[in-house]
Amino acid sequence: MTPDTSARGRPRSADRTEAILLAANEILHEGGYDNFHMQDVADRAGAGLATIYRRWPAKPDLVAATICRHPNMEFVQTDDPTADLRQGAIALATEIGSKGEYIAGFITAVREHPVVAEAVRSAIIGQSRMMFRDSIERMVGGDFLWIGHVVDSIPGVLMFRSGMLGEEVDAEAFADDVVLLVKALAASHNT
Amino acid sequence: MTPDTSARGRPRSADRTEAILLAANEILHEGGYDNFHMQDVADRAGAGLATIYRRWPAKPDLVAATICRHPNMEFVQTDDPTADLRQGAIALATEIGSKGEYIAGFITAVREHPVVAEAVRSAIIGQSRMMFRDSIERMVGGDFLWIGHVVDSIPGVLMFRSGMLGEEVDAEAFADDVVLLVKALAASHNT
Repeated sequence: MTPDTSARGRPRSADRTEAILLAANEILHEGGYDNFHMQDVADRAGAGLATIYRRWPAKPDLVAATICRHPNMEFVQTDDPTADLRQGAIALATEIGSKGEYIAGFITAVREHPVVAEAVRSAIIGQSRMMFRDSIERMVGGDFLWIGHVVDSIPGVLMFRSGMLGEEVDAEAFADDVVLLVKALAASHNT
Repeated sequence: MTPDTSARGRPRSADRTEAILLAANEILHEGGYDNFHMQDVADRAGAGLATIYRRWPAKPDLVAATICRHPNMEFVQTDDPTADLRQGAIALATEIGSKGEYIAGFITAVREHPVVAEAVRSAIIGQSRMMFRDSIERMVGGDFLWIGHVVDSIPGVLMFRSGMLGEEVDAEAFADDVVLLVKALAASHNT
């Protein structure tokens, strides 16, 4: 029996990884990137700081792994594209729409640490862009040159209002606006 | 004759203020907020560091004054709302669309220094929001619930692509997308 195997045969390192990423996710969402400290993660996960550093050599590595494991946003595709769009807009607005500090810290982290950028792009942005495009194309009945702008307006308006203006965004009202906009665009092509 | 009056009777302090704000504007646009240093401004303006600090006690104060004096964006309103919208989108995209670092630094500065936030909001955001809303309302023939989203999508998409994704935004292509989008919205209400 190796030291990595528990009495019930389940590898302890996997348990620890999950516990650490779960604690890291909580801490990341409580204080954002700037207030994320490896020691707090170790304390909350009941893990040794050395264990954490052995697996993730620096803070950006652990943050990136946390984002990939817990993107905290689920984008579903059903046969109702309007409901999908609305649900996705609410998910994104809930995640970033009321957290100006959070966004500001993340924008800086994304610029400074390629590993964080890659995690954000693959775990959050890539997925949401695909879902939004698909829903909008189905609602307006085709692919149009302006769809890319509408897709990126969903995270963009949230970043602008929350990160730049410091406004608190109401997720439901925001999603309603997005749906109304796309419905108006659908009307222009279905009349 | 006081020391503040030049031989030709023009107050020297006004000359100095202009020279300092001009130098500050250049430096701000070369390196963004994070690389903006009072000493560099003093050197370029040929002014004493003490003179600068007497007038603007800290870096955020000088940056705010610079933004108010040199917003670097002109939003015009003519009788052609499509041209106004296109010109405004190009101005904004040229200013912020290819400067991810610049945006990231500014978002942080806006969050941390109310004086910078106030300058950005009054000198840039307030003016551009008003112009975009006016052009779009004229193009679509009225006020609709989704107009606020379209207005904020112009800076928002730029911030998202440049600040978060690190993409280089082509100002002309970006403005074309915005115009096409608003034209599609206009079609939905004018048919």
